[in-house]
Order: sequence, then structure tokens, then C-alpha cells
Amino acid sequence: MDLFEPRDPDFAARVRTDFARQGLMATLGAELVDVSAGAVTITLPFRADLTQQHGYVHAGAITAIVDSACGYAALSLMAVGVEVLTVEYKVNFLAPASGAVFVARGRVTKPGRTLTVCSGDVVVQGSDGRERHIATMLTTMMAVQPRTEG
Amino acid sequence: MDLFEPRDPDFAARVRTDFARQGLMATLGAELVDVSAGAVTITLPFRADLTQQHGYVHAGAITAIVDSACGYAALSLMAVGVEVLTVEYKVNFLAPASGAVFVARGRVTKPGRTLTVCSGDVVVQGSDGRERHIATMLTTMMAVQPRTEG
Amino acid sequence: MDLFEPRDPDFAARVRTDFARQGLMATLGAELVDVSAGAVTITLPFRADLTQQHGYVHAGAITAIVDSACGYAALSLMAVGVEVLTVEYKVNFLAPASGAVFVARGRVTKPGRTLTVCSGDVVVQGSDGRERHIATMLTTMMAVQPRTEG
Amino acid sequence: MDLFEPRDPDFAARVRTDFARQGLMATLGAELVDVSAGAVTITLPFRADLTQQHGYVHAGAITAIVDSACGYAALSLMAVGVEVLTVEYKVNFLAPASGAVFVARGRVTKPGRTLTVCSGDVVVQGSDGRERHIATMLTTMMAVQPRTEG
Repeated sequence: MDLFEPRDPDFAARVRTDFARQGLMATLGAELVDVSAGAVTITLPFRADLTQQHGYVHAGAITAIVDSACGYAALSLMAVGVEVLTVEYKVNFLAPASGAVFVARGRVTKPGRTLTVCSGDVVVQGSDGRERHIATMLTTMMAVQPRTEG
Repeated sequence: MDLFEPRDPDFAARVRTDFARQGLMATLGAELVDVSAGAVTITLPFRADLTQQHGYVHAGAITAIVDSACGYAALSLMAVGVEVLTVEYKVNFLAPASGAVFVARGRVTKPGRTLTVCSGDVVVQGSDGRERHIATMLTTMMAVQPRTEG
Repeated sequence: MDLFEPRDPDFAARVRTDFARQGLMATLGAELVDVSAGAVTITLPFRADLTQQHGYVHAGAITAIVDSACGYAALSLMAVGVEVLTVEYKVNFLAPASGAVFVARGRVTKPGRTLTVCSGDVVVQGSDGRERHIATMLTTMMAVQPRTEG
Repeated sequence: MDLFEPRDPDFAARVRTDFARQGLMATLGAELVDVSAGAVTITLPFRADLTQQHGYVHAGAITAIVDSACGYAALSLMAVGVEVLTVEYKVNFLAPASGAVFVARGRVTKPGRTLTVCSGDVVVQGSDGRERHIATMLTTMMAVQPRTEG
């Protein structure tokens, strides 16, 4: 169920191609698991080499996946050829990032021609099967128009 | 020249030990280059496996180093045994993260018993020797008191 | 329908008393219209003396009502005698603040003993009866414990 | 001493005219005291009808003056006819807003054709003559180009 009308019918393929070019996502072991119009989900399995000093996943790694989820949620609504840049974000960390798999969900709050505002959340499934809310993001993404070639 | 009076004279050693336990910093290739009371500098050399889709260093990696720089700036002013957690941060991205070495500088804006507010900046030295300003952070860090053992 | 279990059964009366002491809310003409456990709604009718240079309501006035809505949402879950302070907030402005009545809704995202994270939104009802989304807030509130008297 | 080169030599007059049209600034009693290229100062005297429940000036009023200071700092560097809008801001509150006169200083961190990033601070002069730091802001401002008339 799409909440927004995408301008590019092939938005999901475009997002997947773009994600595959993000070196950091491969380095972290992040995976793009779902792309719909205005909403993207990325997962990150726990790894000891992603931690901070207490053995939890580092805020920077959690931020990286929810930033990418929000950025691709924004990109999914943009026209062919347009690229997306992160203008800024704010993240609140709600609980220690412990657990097996972190799920980052980005969604468009307000699409725009130049600026798109997105929200994101990171949850982890606990051993009791319930989701714990780890982090929440509010971010501004910018559409970069393709340059006209001479 | 220290702007703040540290409560722990061995703060620099404590910060260095703590940094060495951050798995993500090693994975990214980040280095702790300077620790003073209320101010910490971390560097990150460019690597292709840290990039986003345009070949610049990913916002998440830039955020990770400036978050650590701010967190350790806060920790440097805390008493022995106290630990630091990132409550939240906001980052503005000012220019594409291209270049050879990224320098993240975190500093304490307002220390507090429970909450410490820090500011951080990431710069890169251009081929002309001038610094370019890549990102700026405003963040809230929290002191976690050690638990009393029974 | 309460999503959270309040510790003080008289939370609504406590919030209303506290709101009545906010000089700025009276100056702006804001009204507390709904208090439930973890969620508060405040309204602000348009007035020409609340505007910025384009005749829209000033970002500061919009922020004031959604900050109060979030702060009282946090306070509604706190124990008797505890007070609430705004640690920090981030607001994105999504559309010009034009219209007759602005509705700020604050809700608790994650309650905590010391820090409570809240989200807020400001909407305005258009002449077509549909809500327009004007602003969205992500904020950290702090519980201040009552001082023990000697 | 200007840090930035203004495109409009009459930027200060333009900022002053624009400020005079902000209804909220007059309602709060705020005053524009200094305009230079990329930096603006606004003051706000304490008034009981600007307070929150503890008798300090409300976060929303503090935010309003530092938002305007940052917005006009951004506008001071823009071309004639361009207008400025607040995209988003984040504010950290560092100390209770008590005192006689609040001084909000906004300055441009990074100017841009479309987006300008600004930083702001609010201080209050204590009875000992020293400044106390009340709040700090990090914000994104947007240039709105004038519409071409048919």
C-alpha cells in the first residue's frame, strides 16, 4: 500500500542500484530489505566490530542505516535523474543498541520539490519477540537536479 | 590550554582506553589524535569502503567520528568511574565529504552533573592547504553514574 | 484510551494548573484543549501580532505551543511533585503557518526516569476541512526531582 | 569587521525593514540592536507575561529571538529581492532563562545559494557583569527567490 504517488514507476530498482553503490553499507553489513513509495527498510545484524565501548552498536552505525533508509524513502518519490543529499538530521537514542538484528525504517513525512522531510526509527526484536525502540530520526533531504550537459 | 578543570587528572588515559574499546572506530580506521580537558580530536582517512553512492564519505561515518569526539570531550570532564552515553545529536552537512583525511573536533559547550552539551565540527584539508568545513554537530551527552555493588 | 499508565491519577489537573501559570501561553492566546496520559493538545488562534514578516505565524510561536504540548505530555506521566524542563528540541517547518487555528499535539515517544523523549506536530484545518501539517518536533524533556526540605 | 561579503550593500536597511514587519517581535518586546554581514543581534527584556511555569522566560520566546537573529544573519548575505524561510532548527537550553535582558546572537556558519546554515546563542548578563549562556541553536535557512511577474 503506497501512501505517495511515485513519479518514477521504476523507483524501487533505482533505489536498489543506488544502495548497492554505498560502500559503507557493505562495510557495515547492512541490507536493503524493503522499498515502497516513500518508505524504505534497511537491516543491520549485530557485529562486534560495530560497537562502542560498552559493547552496544555505535550510535554512528545506527545513524548510518536510518539515514540511508530516510534518504532512499525520499529518493523513491523523486523524478528520474534526480539525486538525494542529506541536509541535516537529528537522532534521539532511546535504548542501548543491543540485540541480534537492527531494523531501520525511513518514511517521508513531507515531500517537496527541493526539500523532503523524513522520519525514521530503529527497532530491534527482543528474545520475547517484542520490538524495542532504539532510536528515532527527524531529517531534511535535498533533491539535486541533474546538470544539463553542453 | 585547558578551558575546563578536569575532576580526574588522568582523564586523557581514561579516554584513550575507552576509545580503544570502540569496535566501530577500528573498523572505520579512525584515530584518536588529541585529548584535552573538554576537547577531543579524532581523524578518519578516506577509504572507498566508507562511501555513499556518490563516492563521498557516508554521513554515518562522519557522524560516528564527531559523535565519538563529542562524547569523549564530555567524558574528559567527568569523575572517575562515570560513563558517558549519547542522548541525542543533530548534524548539518555543509559540503561533500571528499578529501584525504577528515578531522572531527568535539568540545564541551556546557558541562553538567547529568547532562553535558557539546559542539563538534568536521573539516578536511584541501589540496590548497585550506580547511573546508564538512559538518557541524550539536549534541547532548549524559553521565551514567557507576552502580553501587551490594 | 491511554497508551501509558500514569503514576499520578490526578495528572490532568496537575497539567492544567501548571499550564495556567505559563505567562507566555496567555500572551499568545494559546489554550489547553486536551490532556491524556502521555498526550496533550494545545490550540492557538491566528493573530496578526504573532506573525513574521510574510504574515504567517512566527516559527517561535508555533514552537512555543508544540514545546508546551510535548512538555505537558511528558509531565502527565511523571510522579507527583516532579517538574519538567525542556532539554532541547528540533523542529522542521513543513508549510507556511497560515490559517485560523493551529493545533499542537505532543505525545510521549519514550518515557524515562530522568529523560523523556516526545514528538509533536502542528496542524491547521484548511477551508476544505482537511488538516495541513505545519511543523513537526522531536524533543528531550527532563524530570526535575523535588528538593527535600531541611 | 565583516566576515562575509554581502551581495546587497544596503543589507542592513533591508533587515531592519523586514524586522519591523514581524508582529511577534513587537508583541514580545524584542529589539534589533545590531546588523552586520552574516551576524545579527536581537535583545529581549524580561517580562512576566513571557514566562513558563517556573517564572523563567519560556523556551518558545527564547527560540523566537534566536530564530529571528539567525534568519536575519542569513538574509544579510542574500541578494536583493530574495526572502528567507526557516527550514528547521535545533535548540539546546543550557540554563534557566532568568535575568533582565536576553541577548540573541545569530551568525552564518555556511552561506549557500539555496540553503544557509546558521548558529545562534542566547546569553544573559548576570548581576556580576558576567554573561551566562542560556541557549544555543543550529539551524537551516532557505533562500526563496522572487517570483517573476508575467
